[in-house]
Amino acid sequence: MKQRIAIDMDEVMADTLEKRLAIYRTEFGEELLRESLHGVNLYEAISEERREAVRAQLFQPGFFREIPLMEGAKDAIRDLMERYEVFITTAAMEYPHSFTEKYEWIKEHLPFFPDSHIVFCGDKSIIHADFLIDDTPHHFARFAGQGILFSAPHNAKEDRYPRVANWSEVRMRFLGEP
Amino acid sequence: MKQRIAIDMDEVMADTLEKRLAIYRTEFGEELLRESLHGVNLYEAISEERREAVRAQLFQPGFFREIPLMEGAKDAIRDLMERYEVFITTAAMEYPHSFTEKYEWIKEHLPFFPDSHIVFCGDKSIIHADFLIDDTPHHFARFAGQGILFSAPHNAKEDRYPRVANWSEVRMRFLGEP
Repeated sequence: MKQRIAIDMDEVMADTLEKRLAIYRTEFGEELLRESLHGVNLYEAISEERREAVRAQLFQPGFFREIPLMEGAKDAIRDLMERYEVFITTAAMEYPHSFTEKYEWIKEHLPFFPDSHIVFCGDKSIIHADFLIDDTPHHFARFAGQGILFSAPHNAKEDRYPRVANWSEVRMRFLGEP
Repeated sequence: MKQRIAIDMDEVMADTLEKRLAIYRTEFGEELLRESLHGVNLYEAISEERREAVRAQLFQPGFFREIPLMEGAKDAIRDLMERYEVFITTAAMEYPHSFTEKYEWIKEHLPFFPDSHIVFCGDKSIIHADFLIDDTPHHFARFAGQGILFSAPHNAKEDRYPRVANWSEVRMRFLGEP
């Protein structure tokens, strides 16, 4: 039986941070550098009076639909699917308006991906898989398989889990080639 | 640690068949009796020329929003949540337009149920739980825990799994009282 890999969407397949920084730029006429987010989340890196507006980005219609694909994700996922059973597991319940946008995003960017293997959830301890590739370490706490941390500025100081810096490193780890 | 029960929506929490029979009655001016569905699915029980229209019911906006709650489901789920970790696991990916309707249905009928424990999926072998209460036996084939078949006319001839006839029997099995 194939081993099973569950893969998160935001900040793993989808470059959600890129989109958020672009909106920030437009909204405040100011550049927020990825370097300034080292080890902190977006809200900790900005002034208190901007936090509410930045949080509201996530609830704008279209936000989750228009996020750019992370570099290398499409080919890597297609190749992983030949050797593993791959599921997309995204914590969509935090943003219930995002269901359709996330589904359409997958259809556009990963048109070969089967509906049967898409999961919208909240608590990811419900996921039965050998590996979970995710940028959010708290999902690994109760996950029964092996968590693989996908690097993002906010998780830079996390050192409890094996880490991949990008999709090339995902390929190295799971397919043995970049 | 609490044992974990995953529970299906359609024909378990939600009386989806009741809704389908009501639409059938309106559409064809004819009663389809539950008895006629013993051991067969809805499509097998009707004439071929009606099948497409009956399948189209599922794609009508509002279909999944307006399904009646199954008798006894609300209190039983609330009581189960005191002794078990309960997840709602529904195969929403077959009907992507249903995401929001299913979410709103849960908010209306089970307002105490946490978002974090709702899962929209396809293949339920991704569910990591001790028990899965479902009317569709094919979900049990690759499920790692114990499948519990919730009786519905279509599964009447299935005899491979322990069975509960209704929510009172779910209570008996998991709480030791009706």
